[in-house]
Amino acid sequence: MLFLARMDVTFPETMSDETKAGFQAREKEYSGDLQRRGVMKGIWRIVGEYANHSVFDVDSHDELHAILSGFPMFPYMKVRVTPLATHPNAIAEDFFTTAEDRAAL
Amino acid sequence: MLFLARMDVTFPETMSDETKAGFQAREKEYSGDLQRRGVMKGIWRIVGEYANHSVFDVDSHDELHAILSGFPMFPYMKVRVTPLATHPNAIAEDFFTTAEDRAAL
Amino acid sequence: MLFLARMDVTFPETMSDETKAGFQAREKEYSGDLQRRGVMKGIWRIVGEYANHSVFDVDSHDELHAILSGFPMFPYMKVRVTPLATHPNAIAEDFFTTAEDRAAL
Amino acid sequence: MLFLARMDVTFPETMSDETKAGFQAREKEYSGDLQRRGVMKGIWRIVGEYANHSVFDVDSHDELHAILSGFPMFPYMKVRVTPLATHPNAIAEDFFTTAEDRAAL
Amino acid sequence: MLFLARMDVTFPETMSDETKAGFQAREKEYSGDLQRRGVMKGIWRIVGEYANHSVFDVDSHDELHAILSGFPMFPYMKVRVTPLATHPNAIAEDFFTTAEDRAAL
Amino acid sequence: MLFLARMDVTFPETMSDETKAGFQAREKEYSGDLQRRGVMKGIWRIVGEYANHSVFDVDSHDELHAILSGFPMFPYMKVRVTPLATHPNAIAEDFFTTAEDRAAL
Amino acid sequence: MLFLARMDVTFPETMSDETKAGFQAREKEYSGDLQRRGVMKGIWRIVGEYANHSVFDVDSHDELHAILSGFPMFPYMKVRVTPLATHPNAIAEDFFTTAEDRAAL
Amino acid sequence: MLFLARMDVTFPETMSDETKAGFQAREKEYSGDLQRRGVMKGIWRIVGEYANHSVFDVDSHDELHAILSGFPMFPYMKVRVTPLATHPNAIAEDFFTTAEDRAAL
Amino acid sequence: MLFLARMDVTFPETMSDETKAGFQAREKEYSGDLQRRGVMKGIWRIVGEYANHSVFDVDSHDELHAILSGFPMFPYMKVRVTPLATHPNAIAEDFFTTAEDRAAL
Amino acid sequence: MLFLARMDVTFPETMSDETKAGFQAREKEYSGDLQRRGVMKGIWRIVGEYANHSVFDVDSHDELHAILSGFPMFPYMKVRVTPLATHPNAIAEDFFTTAEDRAAL
Repeated sequence: MLFLARMDVTFPETMSDETKAGFQAREKEYSGDLQRRGVMKGIWRIVGEYANHSVFDVDSHDELHAILSGFPMFPYMKVRVTPLATHPNAIAEDFFTTAEDRAAL
Repeated sequence: MLFLARMDVTFPETMSDETKAGFQAREKEYSGDLQRRGVMKGIWRIVGEYANHSVFDVDSHDELHAILSGFPMFPYMKVRVTPLATHPNAIAEDFFTTAEDRAAL
Repeated sequence: MLFLARMDVTFPETMSDETKAGFQAREKEYSGDLQRRGVMKGIWRIVGEYANHSVFDVDSHDELHAILSGFPMFPYMKVRVTPLATHPNAIAEDFFTTAEDRAAL
Repeated sequence: MLFLARMDVTFPETMSDETKAGFQAREKEYSGDLQRRGVMKGIWRIVGEYANHSVFDVDSHDELHAILSGFPMFPYMKVRVTPLATHPNAIAEDFFTTAEDRAAL
Repeated sequence: MLFLARMDVTFPETMSDETKAGFQAREKEYSGDLQRRGVMKGIWRIVGEYANHSVFDVDSHDELHAILSGFPMFPYMKVRVTPLATHPNAIAEDFFTTAEDRAAL
Repeated sequence: MLFLARMDVTFPETMSDETKAGFQAREKEYSGDLQRRGVMKGIWRIVGEYANHSVFDVDSHDELHAILSGFPMFPYMKVRVTPLATHPNAIAEDFFTTAEDRAAL
Repeated sequence: MLFLARMDVTFPETMSDETKAGFQAREKEYSGDLQRRGVMKGIWRIVGEYANHSVFDVDSHDELHAILSGFPMFPYMKVRVTPLATHPNAIAEDFFTTAEDRAAL
Repeated sequence: MLFLARMDVTFPETMSDETKAGFQAREKEYSGDLQRRGVMKGIWRIVGEYANHSVFDVDSHDELHAILSGFPMFPYMKVRVTPLATHPNAIAEDFFTTAEDRAAL
Repeated sequence: MLFLARMDVTFPETMSDETKAGFQAREKEYSGDLQRRGVMKGIWRIVGEYANHSVFDVDSHDELHAILSGFPMFPYMKVRVTPLATHPNAIAEDFFTTAEDRAAL
Repeated sequence: MLFLARMDVTFPETMSDETKAGFQAREKEYSGDLQRRGVMKGIWRIVGEYANHSVFDVDSHDELHAILSGFPMFPYMKVRVTPLATHPNAIAEDFFTTAEDRAAL
């Protein structure tokens, strides 16, 4: 079941660059793992903003909320999710590469 | 170069069901062709709405505008596009299957 | 998997009262069936508006979109859905009566 | 008399994790008590957000405001309420389980 | 139980002045009756707009929705209601004159 | 001349409970005086929010601004005012009790 | 007592150019009269829009609503008014020329 | 060339009353000078808000930006400007008193 | 004096393709003339929308309003203008080619 | 490929004037370089606001995001970009002066 997410990040003014870098490193690891497992089907930077669009494939809302609230930077994120269904004009069941294709990355 | 699009469709109240069906058939063909060529990387229905999210891969803004304004139902669409860049946490250069994978569909 | 929906209905000015009544009768039947099957867990009128809030329990986004777009009055509705997850403070797994309780209604 | 509420929580940046945990523990107790008494008919997490949708059954606006402003985390909440009436298509007077069903939880 | 309402009226362009006048006459009678019964505690024109603010005193949401949807001009109204509770600084339980005071009007 | 006001209060996070209580006490006195003088015709809590709706009867905009900016908590308020005129359907010139009725309160 | 108004005009698509011209002629006369009487202190076109900003000086809300709703084009206008008070930095009681200055225009 | 401006002021919570008073005194002088020179044609308080509407008459956008950004309180202001043109119904070229009339103020 | 404009076009549903083409041809001529004269410094399509961003260089607001309201398609446009001033970081007084450069186009 | 950008700057209240001046100096250098290279085709101050509109000519979204996030003041900016395509009424392929014209500036 697919969801489009938009995540906007705002760090407190008082946060040091080191702390930010630490968050970003843990975020990268967390995000990479989700991508390799095929839970996060894709992630892109929104041009000019500290924000991303990403697509998640999960089995339940509880799973999705656990994943989103598990992001190291979640306390500094505003997240909005949009449920996606199959489009009648889609020529494929899945537009994304599979977890198997990604396992080695 | 990727763009996330959101397209909302509103048909005039006076349009007959036949005319709508004609538009939808031409739209399906147009959309399918874009998907097979790898220009439209994906398309999904937004749950509960006569709207889609879709992702386009184009070489220029002129190409993208030509594609979008070429949709048979374009006069009845509200379209918003968001430019997407590579995310620093992305583990792959491309998250989508290729035109080659889709050619036979 | 639960979704909160909000549906706002706007009929065209030119629609006759008879046609409206026909839509409303079919809608009532469609809605009642969903409630008896436990797919629609509840539905309430938003005070002062031709709109409802309702809760759906479905297995997938495709199922939910099929249900929503199957409403007889769907062409005249604006629908927005919000995915709901388990709240950590909830004392029960399910707050609603079951389909069995409703079967006889 | 039913109300749909949406509560969004924002803690100050300077609040310690301990203080937050204390608030959350008191909140859980307060919320659980309302659920057992049948005043809070249900509560759900909004996926991806530090927010909930909940439904309250009260006898008056004064009672509802007292309940809402009594939440331990009320000073950090933005609350919006929507009055709900009986929907003409509803097949049941009450869609929720009763306080009796919940008393033992 | 008090509610502040805001009602905005938009007549279709094609409605004749006679039909409008008919609606307005029935509306005046309906509104006057509510005022005399003390259900509508007050009504005021919003300066420069075809809209009013009004205050209703009802026993339930079902009663309020029945009253609002019973307005002759309801199909042409957008209505928004705000539940009002006792303010801690209020020096009186009721700021409005009573139905008895109004009965003879 | 009547105005509907909406006042939303936001205290700084760093304000102590004592300081808040001091503001609230002075506010109550200021507000009570306005009510007794018939300048503030009514005040109600907006359910679930630290906000009120109130109605003012003044002779000029300068008087109203002086009154509003004189509230002890004005620096922490967002205030919006809506000018109200006589509604053609109103059955009474004044819907509120008079200053005389309130003098003893 | 001063009010800033913003008026946006939208004519129905089906209105003939002749009818529009008739409305505009009556509007010009009505507006000119208000300016000569000093009730309308000024009127300006908002660049690029079929809209104006204007300033009214009236004794009451009822007077202002009567004036605004008396505009020939009122049924096609969206009007928003903002009450203006004396600014503490103002060096003059009145910034506008007087009705006497305008009487001969 | 006329512009309508709206300026909203928000001081930081930590600013002392003395500092505020200093800003306000410099602001009054700056504003008075602009009024005497006929650059600021008028200024009014928006009732209930720490905000003004004002009208500027300048020869260029650079001049206007220099004037606005020269306000002592500019760093604490949100400013929005609307370009105003001659209205076809205006009976006068200028609705404001002149710099000469104001020179002695 | 520069202004950034955004123009959104909406044709009535009932307008024939021929009439639209006629408007578009007159619009092209009108727009080309403005560009050659250096009044319209540039014009671009907003990707995916029937809308443009354009930049105008005029001597007064009256001139700009006359130009904008002179567009053949003005009755079907929503126009918003933003006044632009010299940016302190700009390395050139003018970023656009001159009317002379364009005269032969 | 052209993009219109709007950048709004908000410095933290606690930032010293010296630090601000340092940022502004680095910003000016960075911006000037982009202009000389023809990447930033133009930049203008939005009258009355600490904001600019600017136009960028880039080969890809990654390049644009790198440029925007490289602005020294990026952490204090809110940036929104709008993709621009060729307008059918444009008389020139490029409305801006070239990098060569600017090289000596």
